[in-house]
Amino acid sequence: MKMEVNQDCQVVSLAECRRFITECMIAVGTPEAHAKAQSDLLVEADYRGHYSHGMNRLEHYINDIQMGWTDKLATPKILAETPATAWVDGRNGLGAIVGNFSMEIAIKKAKNVGVGWVCTKGANHYGIAGAYAMQAAKVGLVGLSFTNTSPLTNSTRSKKPAIGVNPLSCAASSSDDSFVLDMSTSVVAVGKIEMQKRKHENIPEGWALDHEGNVTVDPEVAYEALHLLPLGGTELHGGYKGFGLGVMVEILTGVMAGANYAKHIPSYNPFSKDRPSDLGQCFIAVDPKCFAPDFENRLDDLLQFARNLEPVNSEKPVIVAGDPEREHMAEVDRVGGVSFCRDQLETCSKLAISLKVTPLKFQN
Amino acid sequence: MKMEVNQDCQVVSLAECRRFITECMIAVGTPEAHAKAQSDLLVEADYRGHYSHGMNRLEHYINDIQMGWTDKLATPKILAETPATAWVDGRNGLGAIVGNFSMEIAIKKAKNVGVGWVCTKGANHYGIAGAYAMQAAKVGLVGLSFTNTSPLTNSTRSKKPAIGVNPLSCAASSSDDSFVLDMSTSVVAVGKIEMQKRKHENIPEGWALDHEGNVTVDPEVAYEALHLLPLGGTELHGGYKGFGLGVMVEILTGVMAGANYAKHIPSYNPFSKDRPSDLGQCFIAVDPKCFAPDFENRLDDLLQFARNLEPVNSEKPVIVAGDPEREHMAEVDRVGGVSFCRDQLETCSKLAISLKVTPLKFQN
Repeated sequence: MKMEVNQDCQVVSLAECRRFITECMIAVGTPEAHAKAQSDLLVEADYRGHYSHGMNRLEHYINDIQMGWTDKLATPKILAETPATAWVDGRNGLGAIVGNFSMEIAIKKAKNVGVGWVCTKGANHYGIAGAYAMQAAKVGLVGLSFTNTSPLTNSTRSKKPAIGVNPLSCAASSSDDSFVLDMSTSVVAVGKIEMQKRKHENIPEGWALDHEGNVTVDPEVAYEALHLLPLGGTELHGGYKGFGLGVMVEILTGVMAGANYAKHIPSYNPFSKDRPSDLGQCFIAVDPKCFAPDFENRLDDLLQFARNLEPVNSEKPVIVAGDPEREHMAEVDRVGGVSFCRDQLETCSKLAISLKVTPLKFQN
Repeated sequence: MKMEVNQDCQVVSLAECRRFITECMIAVGTPEAHAKAQSDLLVEADYRGHYSHGMNRLEHYINDIQMGWTDKLATPKILAETPATAWVDGRNGLGAIVGNFSMEIAIKKAKNVGVGWVCTKGANHYGIAGAYAMQAAKVGLVGLSFTNTSPLTNSTRSKKPAIGVNPLSCAASSSDDSFVLDMSTSVVAVGKIEMQKRKHENIPEGWALDHEGNVTVDPEVAYEALHLLPLGGTELHGGYKGFGLGVMVEILTGVMAGANYAKHIPSYNPFSKDRPSDLGQCFIAVDPKCFAPDFENRLDDLLQFARNLEPVNSEKPVIVAGDPEREHMAEVDRVGGVSFCRDQLETCSKLAISLKVTPLKFQN
């Protein structure tokens, strides 16, 4: 992933991003520890190049708190547990608070009995799913996390959306390398269609559908309908597998956690009063040391083998999940921060004024 | 899925399929209990309409035993365990023996502590992955199973295959309904390309690549190269997500179990002497009763909601994973058996002669 850097953009250090988000959250009454956790989550997304889930979400989260749709004070609660599982009620708390709490339990249980499997209800939008999987990977475990989301993805053959983009993440690390899969189970997220619309360029066949469920290449139509195709695309290209993965995520999250699922999830719209979201989420940690020794060596070997495969086009080397993010982080480190462009900077300025927070400071 | 029934085909009852496969296995020295387990696995695949993994595999399995590449006598062994995990050595035993043993441990642990997670090395081709996920679903648990396979799927951007079709399965049941996802992480399996070749029809763009890693629509080229695209297809259509899923399966199986993985797995070729396969497999069972009550009602509601979505084409109703198999099983029940066509019947005749087993008897 490449950062956009031009005259409309400004570079903001990660520390300054953290400062700004934390102060904005505190300005609407969020306890400092909660504000910091939420800030870390958003900055992690921007650092990794997932801009849609970083600073871009701050306005929504602030709005959710101001409208009382998310409980800025809430702390999650364990409703039931066994040595390997926990059922958690997020009590409508902030995404990072509920997510971190849940994954920490999964990690603790994995260290005790080999696996920790946590299903959480009463959750809100929790940022990048990969952040939770990586928490487990950072302590030598394999981590997985899933969440359901508002319906945007059509089932194969249907006119209207059935389920959300239902992301699926899996992370595993060695001391030298890592694999971080963090993907929606739709072909693309809405942001990619929005980009084509801005550029007045068609979208590829197989990304999205029109209002009647027919494939469209018109980005205006696609963006208005918001009917995404599941991974695989059309039925002929295996889209039913992507839809199956999305339903699997729905079962492992909303259905298992006793939260909202599919049609019951309100649309993710800052002006929707149909709240709280009551999302379902799943957090899994498993200890590779319970199985064959030398897990890390084999992981390194597999990842290096993939990267060293001969590419079709020598300018496009083979990469593995997590590599684009690693490249983006190196770029952020090199230029001293994340590059935000006009739209985002204006939103931050407005937030600074309305919340009486010191505006974002730029590098140089 | 529709059964092919024409003058070249014969209907064989499920009991007769079981009798024939069991006797063939016993004829090459397989203990009766092992022969029956392997027979149940293959018949289950044919019953569900997955013909490539049913009677079609018998010849290969017999060959593997005759050549000494699979140990017909071997029983698996637990190498290490915790309350929620087990590391199993399949000791090169038959697919069903190793798979059933491993999933039974996962189920037992899930009943005790909520989750059972088993990684198995020293495994062979284990039939349909869904068979193991369903074992857990049949006793009220949610089941998952993965296996790695011989490299056939290219990574995004590579000229040559990187990993196998690495199937992923997940099953969940209520008393009235079930969800059974059983999918390769490639767009299609080789069998679908073979079918197009036989019909002299092009394959759709995005199924497979030529020898140099470029998209091809020529079924002859695709069948000769055996370079499949990961789910999603090309990079533009999200194929990197399908490749990411395939690598995730590789990590959860071969890498975690300490078995062969990716390039180290010998090609699945009856004449290859590069054996044993030493595949890695993963078996997970989780008890939904550890989380929110009424799991089954929500599962039923989700599946019915999906099926009741308005279809784009009224002749193609929306279905969920497991529905095509359910339809196929009803058809088998209606006609009194599975329909096998000429090629398969000839192979069975030859086996009957060479192994001195009573030939397959047909219905009518």
